[in-house]
Amino acid sequence: MPAARRPTQAEYTVVHELVPRFRDTDAMGHINNAVYITYLEVARQIYWARLDRRADYRRVPFILANVACDFRSEALVNEVLMLGIRLDWIGTKSFAFVYEIWEKTSGRTVVEATTVQVCYDYEAKRTLPMPGPLRKALESFEGRDLARPVFP
Amino acid sequence: MPAARRPTQAEYTVVHELVPRFRDTDAMGHINNAVYITYLEVARQIYWARLDRRADYRRVPFILANVACDFRSEALVNEVLMLGIRLDWIGTKSFAFVYEIWEKTSGRTVVEATTVQVCYDYEAKRTLPMPGPLRKALESFEGRDLARPVFP
Amino acid sequence: MPAARRPTQAEYTVVHELVPRFRDTDAMGHINNAVYITYLEVARQIYWARLDRRADYRRVPFILANVACDFRSEALVNEVLMLGIRLDWIGTKSFAFVYEIWEKTSGRTVVEATTVQVCYDYEAKRTLPMPGPLRKALESFEGRDLARPVFP
Amino acid sequence: MPAARRPTQAEYTVVHELVPRFRDTDAMGHINNAVYITYLEVARQIYWARLDRRADYRRVPFILANVACDFRSEALVNEVLMLGIRLDWIGTKSFAFVYEIWEKTSGRTVVEATTVQVCYDYEAKRTLPMPGPLRKALESFEGRDLARPVFP
Repeated sequence: MPAARRPTQAEYTVVHELVPRFRDTDAMGHINNAVYITYLEVARQIYWARLDRRADYRRVPFILANVACDFRSEALVNEVLMLGIRLDWIGTKSFAFVYEIWEKTSGRTVVEATTVQVCYDYEAKRTLPMPGPLRKALESFEGRDLARPVFP
Repeated sequence: MPAARRPTQAEYTVVHELVPRFRDTDAMGHINNAVYITYLEVARQIYWARLDRRADYRRVPFILANVACDFRSEALVNEVLMLGIRLDWIGTKSFAFVYEIWEKTSGRTVVEATTVQVCYDYEAKRTLPMPGPLRKALESFEGRDLARPVFP
Repeated sequence: MPAARRPTQAEYTVVHELVPRFRDTDAMGHINNAVYITYLEVARQIYWARLDRRADYRRVPFILANVACDFRSEALVNEVLMLGIRLDWIGTKSFAFVYEIWEKTSGRTVVEATTVQVCYDYEAKRTLPMPGPLRKALESFEGRDLARPVFP
Repeated sequence: MPAARRPTQAEYTVVHELVPRFRDTDAMGHINNAVYITYLEVARQIYWARLDRRADYRRVPFILANVACDFRSEALVNEVLMLGIRLDWIGTKSFAFVYEIWEKTSGRTVVEATTVQVCYDYEAKRTLPMPGPLRKALESFEGRDLARPVFP
């Protein structure tokens, strides 16, 4: 079920090239579905490191609230994958990333996904409003308006 | 964000008790988000083994097309988790599972999720209409009508 | 390369039955080699929980220093595996576990392994002599002499 | 427990730079021990791709028979790791790799390991003598004598 559209690096704020590990496969002979959710986490990790070079991913001020993932085609261990990620919107307490994973040579879409994160105080164990400085840093990094659409 | 409702075994067709592995945790100190997607696969694996005791999970006649997952609360490695799974609907070529993962002692909801599978011929590498015998086996196993709602 | 000897539960202090997850497989169609190292950790986790029911595995007073593992036969996802573990010896600062993993029905040996752990203060980030109460608890749990052999 | 010696790229035939995934960590806050065994597999995968650019790692003509691994220091998710691998010896049916994993900036040794592989016919499910062309390719790639030492 490959998409007709060929994804481009320009559609994403951060694009990361990933060489699968053999451990990422399963007995179906292809990359296991749960591993793509780890690839999304790799994309967030790279995104956050670019946003703030001093960041420690163990100290990020959010928790994952939701993931939605479409599996468009299977990928094999000898393929090189491109992970694209961009911020979709910022709300009062939450923000969303959009992702696409495609095969490097052919441009074949493998996965399309979104995740919603909620700002979180890990010590107090409760959600937080989006801190102003973080919103500014994200808007500056993305270089565009990130207000949440009224009718999503 | 625990749900007020306490999940019960009666809501699910198959319920499986899972003791997390230490490897399931990450440096946040809790079960990693991608691992829950593996727990959903464990639930499908158990479901399929109950449906057909001779089944080999490497030969299941479907592929995963979509997963949507809400993370309701964090779980720790010393907690015992209950995985509940039931079929939601059967369409022309696809069918959906609904899942819930909850902490055994407290009944605290950890994850709510759905997956959509598409019937698939792995040798021919193409999708298939749902085979009649499989539909009958699933309806018999679930003991209820599984027609896809017209307005989902 | 199955061993002629059939392993028995009596050879091990703790024996745990493990149903593999589909995620444990790789594209060779069998359980991936690194996953057995996780199974050894599962065995330690179960051992430690039996030793001290109030134990939190995130607080164990040791680090892993060495693992040696022989892969005797391949295992498939639809097999049920038995994990056997016993303490081998206790030294001044370190102690060793011996493990065997076998297929439940046939008794076929899948893995034989040993690990060496060093007592460790995670806060001070340094090794420690084996604490007296821990040595006593281990000897009592094992029910036999655990002095390290002079000529190992 | 860092080694006094600082590892160099010249000691290994293939050196691969690896950025850990957050999923590689566990609740101890560091890279999980079993993940290093996957890193060794990544090193073999890269080695084999360099040896034969047309190689498909799912078709390698060997099985893993043994792994021995010393954990020298802990590594954190924000560290970059160097994986060094070289062939140690070739025997009649088997061959051994030596590995070292070190932190890129400091040169701190994280893991030292060896693995033994046995030549294997996956279809016939039995071991094989080392094929002559493979031995020649390995010796040519390593550029040195690989006879197994008589007194290992």
